[in-house]
Amino acid sequence: MKNMVYIQSGGPTSVINTSFYGAIKEAQQHPDLIDHIYGSENGIEGLIDDKLIDIGQEDSEQIELLLQTPGSILGTTRRKLPKDIRDPLYVKIIANLQKHEIKYVFINGGNDSMDTCNKISQLVKEMGLDIVVIGVPKTIDNDLACTDHSLGFPSAAKFVINTVNSLIKDACCFKVGKVHIVEIMGRDAGWLTAAPDVLPEENRPHLFYLPENKFDLEQFLVDVKKVYEREGYAMICISEGLQFPRDMKNVRVDGFGHAQLGGAASDLCHIVEDRLNLPTRAVELSLTQRACPVYISKVDREEAIETGKIAVKSALKGETGKMIIFKRVSQNPYKIEYQLADLSLVANAVSLVPQSMMKDVTRMDDSFRDYVRPLINGEVTLKCENGIALVTNFKRIRVKA
Amino acid sequence: MKNMVYIQSGGPTSVINTSFYGAIKEAQQHPDLIDHIYGSENGIEGLIDDKLIDIGQEDSEQIELLLQTPGSILGTTRRKLPKDIRDPLYVKIIANLQKHEIKYVFINGGNDSMDTCNKISQLVKEMGLDIVVIGVPKTIDNDLACTDHSLGFPSAAKFVINTVNSLIKDACCFKVGKVHIVEIMGRDAGWLTAAPDVLPEENRPHLFYLPENKFDLEQFLVDVKKVYEREGYAMICISEGLQFPRDMKNVRVDGFGHAQLGGAASDLCHIVEDRLNLPTRAVELSLTQRACPVYISKVDREEAIETGKIAVKSALKGETGKMIIFKRVSQNPYKIEYQLADLSLVANAVSLVPQSMMKDVTRMDDSFRDYVRPLINGEVTLKCENGIALVTNFKRIRVKA
Repeated sequence: MKNMVYIQSGGPTSVINTSFYGAIKEAQQHPDLIDHIYGSENGIEGLIDDKLIDIGQEDSEQIELLLQTPGSILGTTRRKLPKDIRDPLYVKIIANLQKHEIKYVFINGGNDSMDTCNKISQLVKEMGLDIVVIGVPKTIDNDLACTDHSLGFPSAAKFVINTVNSLIKDACCFKVGKVHIVEIMGRDAGWLTAAPDVLPEENRPHLFYLPENKFDLEQFLVDVKKVYEREGYAMICISEGLQFPRDMKNVRVDGFGHAQLGGAASDLCHIVEDRLNLPTRAVELSLTQRACPVYISKVDREEAIETGKIAVKSALKGETGKMIIFKRVSQNPYKIEYQLADLSLVANAVSLVPQSMMKDVTRMDDSFRDYVRPLINGEVTLKCENGIALVTNFKRIRVKA
Repeated sequence: MKNMVYIQSGGPTSVINTSFYGAIKEAQQHPDLIDHIYGSENGIEGLIDDKLIDIGQEDSEQIELLLQTPGSILGTTRRKLPKDIRDPLYVKIIANLQKHEIKYVFINGGNDSMDTCNKISQLVKEMGLDIVVIGVPKTIDNDLACTDHSLGFPSAAKFVINTVNSLIKDACCFKVGKVHIVEIMGRDAGWLTAAPDVLPEENRPHLFYLPENKFDLEQFLVDVKKVYEREGYAMICISEGLQFPRDMKNVRVDGFGHAQLGGAASDLCHIVEDRLNLPTRAVELSLTQRACPVYISKVDREEAIETGKIAVKSALKGETGKMIIFKRVSQNPYKIEYQLADLSLVANAVSLVPQSMMKDVTRMDDSFRDYVRPLINGEVTLKCENGIALVTNFKRIRVKA
């Protein structure tokens, strides 16, 4: 018996289940090579705790709905594995891989998850086990290294662009306008925050603040005032990771003592009111930007399916310790090639928005627009019932522990 | 010459320009009765300041795009007219109506706007002018009296329902879940907040808090804890108008000294963290719920077009001082009749969620679900270019002042 296990890790995207769908479809083409398709519950936790579910027992209609189901259908985790590969955790993982006769391991995630992927890949190699490990790229932040872009970013960007487009039409229709500050996901990388800069010039936000640039609060206030006086309102996009002096009372701290992101727009609005005496409105796009399937980009969907398939094909060819990457080989028409990169090159590296793509610290350059535009192309139609988009509900039948 | 003027008032909805579209289309059928179609800039302000735009000079493709354009294309206002109809403001309004030979006045709005509509209607009647005034219902809050529902509510409800559906799939995939508090528009009425209760039981939020019920913070904490312990996470919908003891430092005050809505979910999350020591996530749907065209309900669109048409037909028949209302004459299949109600009955009245539609203070009854479900039916396809939904950009050619 040779089985495969698929792992979803880190924050979800609106196409995270789409690459899983692609992997399932490809695996089903090779019953001679892959006996069972398993999913690990809650990321790597499922392999540690021996909690695998048998995808072969799920209904095919539910599998089809993965294409439009938000969240990570297998469950996810943010747990980082220990550095020392002699840690007892790894013993559990290896034991469960062997117990369930798993030959193919797929880990779908962002930077931290590729670190996990890399560690397991090295471990099985060192132990001389007949197991291959392949990474599937995913992050709406788009900060994975070695690849043109990451799955999930195009759809999140499309959501943010279209939502901001709507907000601008709403904002500019009042006689006395407000300073609108839209908070967009991205702790270190501003790809998503800058995305609405691709809007047609007449409906484009006025200012963008990315975590790549040092934030100068005084200059920000000068810029906001100037825009407001000219336009009668202002539309400003900021990254949730923006650093400025904040009222710590409003900063939420998680279980590990880390400041949670979120609330930056609201805090900046308070400062604008106090200092400029202008009316404001904070809009935090929050979880909706990674969860809503309604703006899935057709390009993102097709690439996600293809990536899932290529991941399985690569594993069957014996590739291991690699992540699927995209190389843009043509801009017009847009065309990518799927390649493989060593996980050691990808793990824990970060791809930020380069200065060359910025016109100045508040606006993007044409090269940025050329980069983003082809990614958001094409609409998908969601299957709905009574006005509500259908979602996968798995039976989640556990593989005997 | 007999001209018409159309006025958009109060907060926008995703179909506010759709009823305007219907009115334009109908008016264009009667060139013998209506010479010019004017739009008043920024609601009633345009009639006070003599700022009208000539819709006849706009391109027909831009008119078609009104069906998917957020915001109020003519501009809007929240200004309330003075009680005393001898106020000089009314003199200006009457003068401009006469100067531009306007016979037909349409005011599209919610409660406050119907008050404006009622005042102007009474004034022209008392002055014996040959002018008719018709109200077109609109409010995502759904709190207009005398009508089964208001235009804009179905699409906003559809947005909120589908968005919360996505958030639930995102929320339940983490091993250590959070208490999610989703803040939904509605100062006095909880129609929109309660809407996600129509979701299938397996994907339904756990608790709803509407402004119709007195909010008991201690009971809330008991309920949240119970849900979290049972489910491993919690999804809670609250109205932005919910009243509870708040840190006034976080409450934003507008130019009139009124506390602005927004921030309730964030404040409640702080309380949950402090008192229950549970991880939380506040999600404020903010302006997106009234602006995003992507979840326009087909029922809402069709009714909005028809209402605009009927408003014009009614005016041409000489009706005045009335608002178009909907009467639900059949539930299955869903069918409404368009009727007229006296503006004096509608103005300043409020329709709240009745106790009979609530199972208890945290959940809705089947009768509520039966009420909402037909309204969100049917999807629309947005015209997009390069992945971005197109919006109307008017030339805005001013009628000679």
